[in-house]
Amino acid sequence: MGRWQPDSRGRLQEAALALYAEQGFDQTTAAEIADRAGLTERTFFRHFADKREVLFGGSQILKERIVRGVTEAPATDGPIAAVARGLDAAASLLGEGRRDLARQRQAVIAANPELRERELSKLADYATTVAAALRQRGASDAQATFAAEAGMTVLRVALTQWADHDDGRDLNSVMRSSMAELRGVTAAG
Amino acid sequence: MGRWQPDSRGRLQEAALALYAEQGFDQTTAAEIADRAGLTERTFFRHFADKREVLFGGSQILKERIVRGVTEAPATDGPIAAVARGLDAAASLLGEGRRDLARQRQAVIAANPELRERELSKLADYATTVAAALRQRGASDAQATFAAEAGMTVLRVALTQWADHDDGRDLNSVMRSSMAELRGVTAAG
Repeated sequence: MGRWQPDSRGRLQEAALALYAEQGFDQTTAAEIADRAGLTERTFFRHFADKREVLFGGSQILKERIVRGVTEAPATDGPIAAVARGLDAAASLLGEGRRDLARQRQAVIAANPELRERELSKLADYATTVAAALRQRGASDAQATFAAEAGMTVLRVALTQWADHDDGRDLNSVMRSSMAELRGVTAAG
Repeated sequence: MGRWQPDSRGRLQEAALALYAEQGFDQTTAAEIADRAGLTERTFFRHFADKREVLFGGSQILKERIVRGVTEAPATDGPIAAVARGLDAAASLLGEGRRDLARQRQAVIAANPELRERELSKLADYATTVAAALRQRGASDAQATFAAEAGMTVLRVALTQWADHDDGRDLNSVMRSSMAELRGVTAAG
């Protein structure tokens, strides 16, 4: 029995993140990624529409999980409590992934203005969708917007902290303490 | 004495916003803007580096005002109170502008994905700078980030509300009640 090998998609992701970090996102081609992963370019394009999708491919599923967490929150939950349920769902999904890959992904995005804008757009889109789900639950426009935006800030900050500083806590625990910190700072004078 | 005429810069801004709204941002040229304002293209380029700067030209000054408001807040102010001082400064500056032009600007940006990304980047840059100013005042990383992000959300929501719904209140008053709403929703369970 040989060493365990991740599946093709996982190998392509690892190879892509390594190359983006080494030589920059713009300078890397799909052919190089496939080559590094020991696979064909054709296989690359079976898994990803383009090299950007390696970084953003999971966005739709993540959004659906967050929104489902919000929608299925008990009716007694206020807007921010419902958002916290959405973040629990996000943490369960993202926390399964490898911390080192999450860290590499964030470093690649931070180094590239166009990718940073894409990441911000993604979070703004999540916030809009979460706000709509909160209005459906009876929140006012302002409550829905502020709770959703606060939640997306917590998501971003907690993910960065979890990826960059391994203090033994899982993502869910980092997410919950980030939410507590946000609530603490906005509550204080 | 003739009718009062706004200065060249103001006339170019009005003409640009009208054309962006009528025919779209991408379809509008600097020459058309100058023509509509009854000025030369050369005059346009004396006031603006390009047609995008008509929309984002004031960003640097606005950022400086916000940061100064935060920096000069009394030492006894916590992070969110200091951010609220920055927003007061922003409201004083932006509130001098015309509400109808603010509304047009926001509609143009909302209609164009690239301009939306630019606007999000601008607000993210404000948040980073405000967070740095808060850390200088002794806030922790998390406090600084959450207070700054909350402030930029309030700025965006309040500006949209002020521009879109004229209920007789000035921008400063809308900004303060938005901040109160954010604090109310994050404080509630």
